[in-house]
Amino acid sequence: MDTIETRRYDPREFKALTYHDATTRFRDGTDTPRAYLERCLETIAARESVVKAFVARNDEAARAATDASTVRWKAGKPLSAIDGMPVAIKDLLETKDMPTDFGCAAYKGNMTRRDNAAVWALRQAGAVVFGKTATAELGGSHPPETTNPFDPACTPGGSSSGSGAAIGARMVPAALGTQVGGSVIRPAAYCGNVALKPTQGGINRGERQATSMSTTGVHAGCIEDMWQVAIEIAHRAGGDPGRMGLFGPVTPPDAVKPGRLLVLETEGWSRVDAATRATYETFLEDLARAGVMLLRRKDHPWIEAFEKSIAHASRIANTITAWENRWYQAALVELYPDGVSARLKATVRRAEALTPDDYRALLLERAAAQQCHAAIGPLADAAITLSCPGPAPIWSGDVPGQPLAQRPTGDSVFNTPSSMLHAPAVTMPLLGVSGMPVGVQLMGQQHEDARITALARWMVAAVAPVVASS
Amino acid sequence: MDTIETRRYDPREFKALTYHDATTRFRDGTDTPRAYLERCLETIAARESVVKAFVARNDEAARAATDASTVRWKAGKPLSAIDGMPVAIKDLLETKDMPTDFGCAAYKGNMTRRDNAAVWALRQAGAVVFGKTATAELGGSHPPETTNPFDPACTPGGSSSGSGAAIGARMVPAALGTQVGGSVIRPAAYCGNVALKPTQGGINRGERQATSMSTTGVHAGCIEDMWQVAIEIAHRAGGDPGRMGLFGPVTPPDAVKPGRLLVLETEGWSRVDAATRATYETFLEDLARAGVMLLRRKDHPWIEAFEKSIAHASRIANTITAWENRWYQAALVELYPDGVSARLKATVRRAEALTPDDYRALLLERAAAQQCHAAIGPLADAAITLSCPGPAPIWSGDVPGQPLAQRPTGDSVFNTPSSMLHAPAVTMPLLGVSGMPVGVQLMGQQHEDARITALARWMVAAVAPVVASS
Repeated sequence: MDTIETRRYDPREFKALTYHDATTRFRDGTDTPRAYLERCLETIAARESVVKAFVARNDEAARAATDASTVRWKAGKPLSAIDGMPVAIKDLLETKDMPTDFGCAAYKGNMTRRDNAAVWALRQAGAVVFGKTATAELGGSHPPETTNPFDPACTPGGSSSGSGAAIGARMVPAALGTQVGGSVIRPAAYCGNVALKPTQGGINRGERQATSMSTTGVHAGCIEDMWQVAIEIAHRAGGDPGRMGLFGPVTPPDAVKPGRLLVLETEGWSRVDAATRATYETFLEDLARAGVMLLRRKDHPWIEAFEKSIAHASRIANTITAWENRWYQAALVELYPDGVSARLKATVRRAEALTPDDYRALLLERAAAQQCHAAIGPLADAAITLSCPGPAPIWSGDVPGQPLAQRPTGDSVFNTPSSMLHAPAVTMPLLGVSGMPVGVQLMGQQHEDARITALARWMVAAVAPVVASS
Repeated sequence: MDTIETRRYDPREFKALTYHDATTRFRDGTDTPRAYLERCLETIAARESVVKAFVARNDEAARAATDASTVRWKAGKPLSAIDGMPVAIKDLLETKDMPTDFGCAAYKGNMTRRDNAAVWALRQAGAVVFGKTATAELGGSHPPETTNPFDPACTPGGSSSGSGAAIGARMVPAALGTQVGGSVIRPAAYCGNVALKPTQGGINRGERQATSMSTTGVHAGCIEDMWQVAIEIAHRAGGDPGRMGLFGPVTPPDAVKPGRLLVLETEGWSRVDAATRATYETFLEDLARAGVMLLRRKDHPWIEAFEKSIAHASRIANTITAWENRWYQAALVELYPDGVSARLKATVRRAEALTPDDYRALLLERAAAQQCHAAIGPLADAAITLSCPGPAPIWSGDVPGQPLAQRPTGDSVFNTPSSMLHAPAVTMPLLGVSGMPVGVQLMGQQHEDARITALARWMVAAVAPVVASS
């Protein structure tokens, strides 16, 4: 499939870039990490002028790093299974050798002289940190210039815009993203990625711990690479301070067929377009035919209670985050009034209306939803839902003189539940609608990252993706 | 009392600098915040060459800020009860107008262009952020040049060395410190301060959330100022993300006489020198005579269980922290091998021997101790214990060619319990031993910051300090 043709994405045919299956050739010398990198650079050269996934790169350092990796693989002594893997880093995460601009003009050229915890761990594992991917401003909603690799008129999603797009454009096999509301799962779903948003605190956020729902996640071309990157990081840098960190095997978990899945509507169901809804229902029918029992809110009062507890997840999650960012963003606006977007300033104004007790009340709502989620744990192996309400929407920029456009990077309504629940989520590129990717996600109980990865591995292997009939 | 005379500290006579009682004169114009600041600057000029509390100051900006505050007070419109108060900031906390060196050569001149959450909140409340106080390197144990204000041969404690010393030297009425193991309560106790180490997450740490037991605390000359600074910050910047934040009244809580106090031995009891032990026991007898019932480990099996659960608090707390700092400090050592101390390098080497499962096991030990602590909640109003095993030890520097001295900033053995339990602690300057201050601390259940502040307010007013008879 030629991914450069617009709106021709077909999940049954699209082949994402993968790494785990290349490493056997590194051992026998028929391929090398350096050659792998050069192929990535060729793809980037061909596509980057339109996709605009990267805000910084360090190609020469990457070449040197892959040369060193080539030697280790040939000697049979790689530092890890991801030794030599080119990994792109969302530009919210600090890197010692590239600037970290946070997608914000006020931080242009910000050299922090240190690596984020996960970046440091990647280097320890021999992975190649070779570029910074575009992010929405400070991880919020003001979009970067990145375009969707399957239609440049559309958003790639956000805030991990460049990471999602780089995987969709086959530029790299893996990329780090971060999610507070829906910033990993949504761009991954719009760009045909596999991605893991871990249990809260599963991967050490290092210096970026300033909000209670932010997580570092992994975008990849396949389940195997996704898991391997996550576990190699967690093994070296651990989880967040005070958290247990990502649990699971040191190699990708074997595929496991789910016995029962809980089909969640969430707050997002009413916003799903008809074609996406029909396509997803077809996929669910295929799942049922494959022998998976599906439960819905009408089937058990606890499921109904849980759906109710997350029916306002967007308000709860987004308001919590607005409060948590308030002091920092208010100070930034004061210091650099011309260095932040009007969209950010509007967010700060909304946050300034909140009081400590408003915030405390929201924390209690969140805690109650987490209890409802725990209660349904025994009912099913995991929950399944869409990763986004439909394919990536068109984004052509704000119109001067008009009110700021709502949701320029798409709608996070299917993503706020897992964030708010501190629950792990995996998105899989299983649907095609209007020639564009739409993701399906599995959400597990806290610390069940490996379990949902095993279920996802079964699902992508055993159930054919579905394309809208229209 | 002339505080410049060496080893002549007497807690019955020492008058710390206070602010809350000065503000009535700001309203009637018989004093001004600017004049208050100038008196602070005079003290600093007289004592700083020996005490070395500050690593950066911004006197002119402080003068301008107090002039603005003077106008507000005269107009009867202060921004808060601490409008115009000069507050010193530990140099681990970022300030937009002064460098943040973290006490580490590798960060010399580090201008972060932003305020820490608490610093931002102080400015919002009209307080005057006029200097950065010396810290042990990265908040660890490698000491700065600061000396104890009551004997320059002794350590002021650490890691909030400069904050503790600045209060003890009457340079400022309040200062921010931070504690991971014992970095607020210990220097405060060695320097004759009052101080609050809040419930974990009580005061928003802003960008410094990298360890699970670090807290931002307040050093002050009196209970009233201590509480007012803490609550003004928490009201504006909240607590840590995901935490409820500091609960309590917007003015200092009224004094409350405790009915029952639990006298804790902790791991530290065996390390207390004879003079300190005798002085403390005298103080406890005075407390009992005042009508406070004292309970000890022999009086209830839950107290015994709790003492056992914290009997290895130092090992648990210090190892947890070493793991949490590992990736960051290892990366720093790699980047700046000549920019960090040999002491820090040794800490990193110890941390590198740990595995994720070692860390998880320690988190479980910590959680179990927190459960034991919760269980004793109903038995007493609070716990009481020493804040340090005796007066500040002499510190004359490492000896070249010899092994690095142990605990150059003193012993944190009485401080790790509250850190590990995420519990609030207040230290009070109630003992004098060998002409030096020794603190007594109250520790409450999580979120009982205001309650222990009320108890402390009673104690400093109602029970006379005790001086060693020797």
